[in-house]
Amino acid sequence: MPLLVMKFGGTSVADLARIKNAAEKVRREVERGYDVIVIVSAMSGKTNELVGWVEQTSPLFDAREYDAVVASGENVTAGLMALTLQEMDVPARSWQGWQVPINTTSAHSAARFVSIPRDNIGAKFAEGMKVAVVAGFQGISAEGRITTLGRGGSDTTAVAFAAAFGAERCDIYTDVDGVYTTDPRITSKARKLDRIAYEEMLELASLGAKVLQTRSVELAMRFKVRLRVLSSFEDTDENSGTLVCDEDEIMESKVVSGVAYSRDEAKMTLLSVEDRPGIAAAIFGPLADAGVNVDMIVQNISEKTEGGKSIAVTDMTFSCPVNQVLRARKAMEDARAADIIRYADLIEDTEVAKVSVVGIGMRSHAGVAAAMFKALAAENVNIKVIATSEIKISVLIDRKYMELAVQALHHTFGLDQAA
Amino acid sequence: MPLLVMKFGGTSVADLARIKNAAEKVRREVERGYDVIVIVSAMSGKTNELVGWVEQTSPLFDAREYDAVVASGENVTAGLMALTLQEMDVPARSWQGWQVPINTTSAHSAARFVSIPRDNIGAKFAEGMKVAVVAGFQGISAEGRITTLGRGGSDTTAVAFAAAFGAERCDIYTDVDGVYTTDPRITSKARKLDRIAYEEMLELASLGAKVLQTRSVELAMRFKVRLRVLSSFEDTDENSGTLVCDEDEIMESKVVSGVAYSRDEAKMTLLSVEDRPGIAAAIFGPLADAGVNVDMIVQNISEKTEGGKSIAVTDMTFSCPVNQVLRARKAMEDARAADIIRYADLIEDTEVAKVSVVGIGMRSHAGVAAAMFKALAAENVNIKVIATSEIKISVLIDRKYMELAVQALHHTFGLDQAA
Repeated sequence: MPLLVMKFGGTSVADLARIKNAAEKVRREVERGYDVIVIVSAMSGKTNELVGWVEQTSPLFDAREYDAVVASGENVTAGLMALTLQEMDVPARSWQGWQVPINTTSAHSAARFVSIPRDNIGAKFAEGMKVAVVAGFQGISAEGRITTLGRGGSDTTAVAFAAAFGAERCDIYTDVDGVYTTDPRITSKARKLDRIAYEEMLELASLGAKVLQTRSVELAMRFKVRLRVLSSFEDTDENSGTLVCDEDEIMESKVVSGVAYSRDEAKMTLLSVEDRPGIAAAIFGPLADAGVNVDMIVQNISEKTEGGKSIAVTDMTFSCPVNQVLRARKAMEDARAADIIRYADLIEDTEVAKVSVVGIGMRSHAGVAAAMFKALAAENVNIKVIATSEIKISVLIDRKYMELAVQALHHTFGLDQAA
Repeated sequence: MPLLVMKFGGTSVADLARIKNAAEKVRREVERGYDVIVIVSAMSGKTNELVGWVEQTSPLFDAREYDAVVASGENVTAGLMALTLQEMDVPARSWQGWQVPINTTSAHSAARFVSIPRDNIGAKFAEGMKVAVVAGFQGISAEGRITTLGRGGSDTTAVAFAAAFGAERCDIYTDVDGVYTTDPRITSKARKLDRIAYEEMLELASLGAKVLQTRSVELAMRFKVRLRVLSSFEDTDENSGTLVCDEDEIMESKVVSGVAYSRDEAKMTLLSVEDRPGIAAAIFGPLADAGVNVDMIVQNISEKTEGGKSIAVTDMTFSCPVNQVLRARKAMEDARAADIIRYADLIEDTEVAKVSVVGIGMRSHAGVAAAMFKALAAENVNIKVIATSEIKISVLIDRKYMELAVQALHHTFGLDQAA
């Protein structure tokens, strides 16, 4: 029997009516001849309520107890979904993590999969069960304690089940109807992509297109799980949504698949840093320890004269989320006070945004960067920092030009939909 | 290390502040040198919310899924209680039913204990854990599914753990401060009992004094678990509350320990039932099938003349909760229509109440019934039905005299507290 994994997020199972709506989608796949594994999140708001209770009870909580409390939200949805399917005469039962068992590491609240044996669920499919409803986001450690995978872990659970059971596809039902060439709120010309390669999705996910959790895409890429993103709130069929798949499955690939952005960035520059081997570690070590998520890094070497002799100095620029600027400044000042680093000044620019173009086609096409810079220049947008990877070019620009830049690039690379 | 079981009901763990209050009581017992097993209910209201969702989803629900959903409420409290104790520097951890494991039968929503192995929790006590917080009301079946014990099952869980671990005592913390000679709302002269025998508590529990679940008292009696009922909301010490124990532990026992009542009773009489062997089964079988909880039964034999010959007829009177009268009437009329039983008429009296006196001292004291009837007669209370057991006498009377009767009996049997 061909097998499908279907995952429903918190807003898709927010109340009994939505659970029923989701169950209808499951029933249709069963009628098409599939055995189905359904992965459910907690009803939206429930996980936050549970997390709030834990944090109020114990600010430095025991992560094992945190996991035991927080995982209960998914258990409720799993049972309710199984009951809803049974009401539709679909043979279904719920599975909690320990019942499968979903074996994970003991890294509570950030556990990773160790194994998902097929025996228990497989035996029930063999007996005629059509749908296994599995509580997402959770597992069990070797010590027999409940673990969770961290926020968004239900996507990852879905992909892991698809890999373990050799599913034909893993459908992620969410509150958007697919992956777009850019955010439709920025330009009405944004177009839904029918297909996108894993690598592109990874760049888009980490660049701020919050459709899929990065880790789930990584896992899908590793195990070649065909992943589909589609809407819980619309009628859907085999062609709905966006398929995230191997690039071999994508026929006509554009050079650029999408334009991503991240609005609330900051640019920080350490002036006249005394250059020496290990200076980068001396700067970014304390930043990492302070929990600052450094993104782009640029270094310019120059020289200065001190006490009559010439020494190498450098200006070091990095970007981070704007709400981490205070933390970053404190880390740098502390490091200077402790004489770990020396610099003349620290300049902050908290009015910047990041815009990126992403596409596997770049690998074989020269001139994408040039076209990008030319398009931005034509709009008089000044580029402050540039960073590139094999399939991505990112620039830091003044925040006020962000929408303009996204629209210009979307047009330049032929992504606008026909009017 | 001496061991104590402490159980906190839903109102005692209704929010984080109350969980903290309960945890304080646990901490004090640890300081007195006890290892403690804490049994917790769901935060009050949570179980009803979960049950509501299940019933809305599926009126004829799969009890296995019902149990999986409903048991999650206790898991949340168990984790929060463990975290609260850890915050007080008391080494604690939570245990869900399957982790202990609490092995039960597969009778979902009404499961019974099969075994509670001491190994897992015992090993943690040996390692220095002081408190095991166990989710009440739940267990695991041989099939690996989550089971629940039915409403009030947390009391039963507590007693079962006390028996399994040989606890010195099982303390049931609730919203009253003990077991009273009668309901203090009926007479201000009601007095808290320091001790009460299991048998007496069983009669009081099933007669409407809703302090302890009947099944938990039965289990305590069977395994000689010393059970103490006391208040979550007051300062308590070794002498607080009421101890439910073997009668050997009760020194000076009064003839009557308490006066119980049940307000909303109905009396139904089938007139001129044709008497024959098996007639009682023919009447009470259909009533049981219709879910009518028949309590007292009285039969009067008489004779009537039909077609010139004398045949034995009987009037059959029984009592049941007043809200089951319609159901009882339909069951009787259906049985008559199907010619299963024959009777002349069915008379209902929905304005009655039951009053009972309970005491193990009755076994060795004659004249308790006579004293009871005399006291009621002195107040001009007419007795409609009488039923007796070894340690109890119950009467059905007009509902409007109920309070008066309770007060008179409370006084007659020397239960009034000194003014």
